[in-house]
Amino acid sequence: MLDSAAAAAEAIRRLAVRGAPLIGVVAACALAVELERDAGALEPAAALLRGARPTAVNLAWAVDRVVAAARSGGSGAAGAAAAAAAAARGEAEAIKAEQEAANLAIGEHGAALLEGARRVLTHCNTGALACGGEGGTALAVIAAMSTRGPVEVVASETRPLLQGARLTVWELSRAGIRCSLCVDGAAAGLIARGEIDAVVVGADRIAANGDVANKVGTYAHALAANAAGVPFVVAAPESTLDPATRTGAEIVIEERDADEVRRLGDTLLTLPDVPVRNPAFDITPADLVTAIVTERGVRERAPQR
Amino acid sequence: MLDSAAAAAEAIRRLAVRGAPLIGVVAACALAVELERDAGALEPAAALLRGARPTAVNLAWAVDRVVAAARSGGSGAAGAAAAAAAAARGEAEAIKAEQEAANLAIGEHGAALLEGARRVLTHCNTGALACGGEGGTALAVIAAMSTRGPVEVVASETRPLLQGARLTVWELSRAGIRCSLCVDGAAAGLIARGEIDAVVVGADRIAANGDVANKVGTYAHALAANAAGVPFVVAAPESTLDPATRTGAEIVIEERDADEVRRLGDTLLTLPDVPVRNPAFDITPADLVTAIVTERGVRERAPQR
Repeated sequence: MLDSAAAAAEAIRRLAVRGAPLIGVVAACALAVELERDAGALEPAAALLRGARPTAVNLAWAVDRVVAAARSGGSGAAGAAAAAAAAARGEAEAIKAEQEAANLAIGEHGAALLEGARRVLTHCNTGALACGGEGGTALAVIAAMSTRGPVEVVASETRPLLQGARLTVWELSRAGIRCSLCVDGAAAGLIARGEIDAVVVGADRIAANGDVANKVGTYAHALAANAAGVPFVVAAPESTLDPATRTGAEIVIEERDADEVRRLGDTLLTLPDVPVRNPAFDITPADLVTAIVTERGVRERAPQR
Repeated sequence: MLDSAAAAAEAIRRLAVRGAPLIGVVAACALAVELERDAGALEPAAALLRGARPTAVNLAWAVDRVVAAARSGGSGAAGAAAAAAAAARGEAEAIKAEQEAANLAIGEHGAALLEGARRVLTHCNTGALACGGEGGTALAVIAAMSTRGPVEVVASETRPLLQGARLTVWELSRAGIRCSLCVDGAAAGLIARGEIDAVVVGADRIAANGDVANKVGTYAHALAANAAGVPFVVAAPESTLDPATRTGAEIVIEERDADEVRRLGDTLLTLPDVPVRNPAFDITPADLVTAIVTERGVRERAPQR
């Protein structure tokens, strides 16, 4: 049960809840619940939730919105505490509802942009399991495309935690969308061979200059798409845009536990003590991004020379 | 026991024996052994071995050398059959000895080329477990570099079969060379962040125009190295150069079993029946290859505009 800020922060940290939009929604709801129990918990609970993962900006953005709502809704006194908690809950519910509406709009804008594309490659998981509700970001685009015509998806498995293999393949199958799986290293070759019409991914933070932080492995797909002249499209809610971060170089990349790479469940894949580099994200520079699709519409990159 | 051509072909097919140089040596030896038992086996045994895997050219090259030696050594009569078998064995032993000498020369040429580089990224396994003897191709370069100064290696794990995690990490540790492991999708980001001085890989076939077929995942590393201005070096024996193949587009890419991607040992990683794309290799175009290092020396790419 995610019935406290501490439980939600822990679930976000160990990825029981993941996906940039969804961790924002869950953190907002957890903060509101915490505040109903303890009026003095606002600041420490907000700090705990903001610190659970560093890269996705939606987390801090959602927490900040609930904190601001609670503050304007009341202060220390008993009646005021109840008003603050009510304001926080209202804001958390608004964030959730906005996110669900955004998912649908992202899907429609993306499908309109990619009219005519049939074979889509995606990375990691960006469906309802990452975003809540019925929607998603990149998977919302794919779902909207599939209502306009046949679509075939290649999902890259997304090592180390295999969100593509474990979640995306399952969500696409459930939605009745044709899908095949490849290892992450195979995607670039498939793109180069002309087997992919568009690459569509989500984002965890988009800097002011358009650089995109997303699940590790995204940057290589973007390089391959660019080399092949295939559109590389990022789908994300407006809350993923972070004007306070000038470029991708300023984005903190979370480095996760070595055993995520060394082990798969109980199976040891390598020497037990080998040092590991395990960045959870990478940065795709703005000049490789064909378009960013949000609920407000499409920002296309200026044509390249 | 690889005491017949059939046993050797099966071992090569299921990757019990792998690595382009080593499968050439093993096929040559198996063909010689087969011929000692059955003088009439030359053509069918050679065909069986050549067909075991399609992409690495060293396999067909080694088999062809043993066939030619057997033919010039004798024909159908009893005494001639013994002479043919002796000639075949001599040729197989020559191939093995040449390969071992080539490995050492490749290492020295590569280390001279990369003078000053300290942090090297490699993909798949190219050490003694892939090449026989004490040597290797890319790992021979790394070993020779380590005799000149401190070297730190990042090995990408090499899904689906994890040769990097299972073999390269082990060989480097055994050689006392500092090494860390990353998932394949993390390599491009590490290169972009300035953490790698050179990428060094092996090859399974090099076309006349310089396009390189190597383990799937190589092409993305080459794109990232190129984008970052980091040398991308291919180390391979001369027998990997295939003048009969004009460009990479003509190279047959082996597509392997779907369960290599779907399962890890007994663990199912995805839906049991999801379609899979599992190319074992990809093509790195010549213009991304900074240099090809063979036992004869270094072929550098013409400077780019």
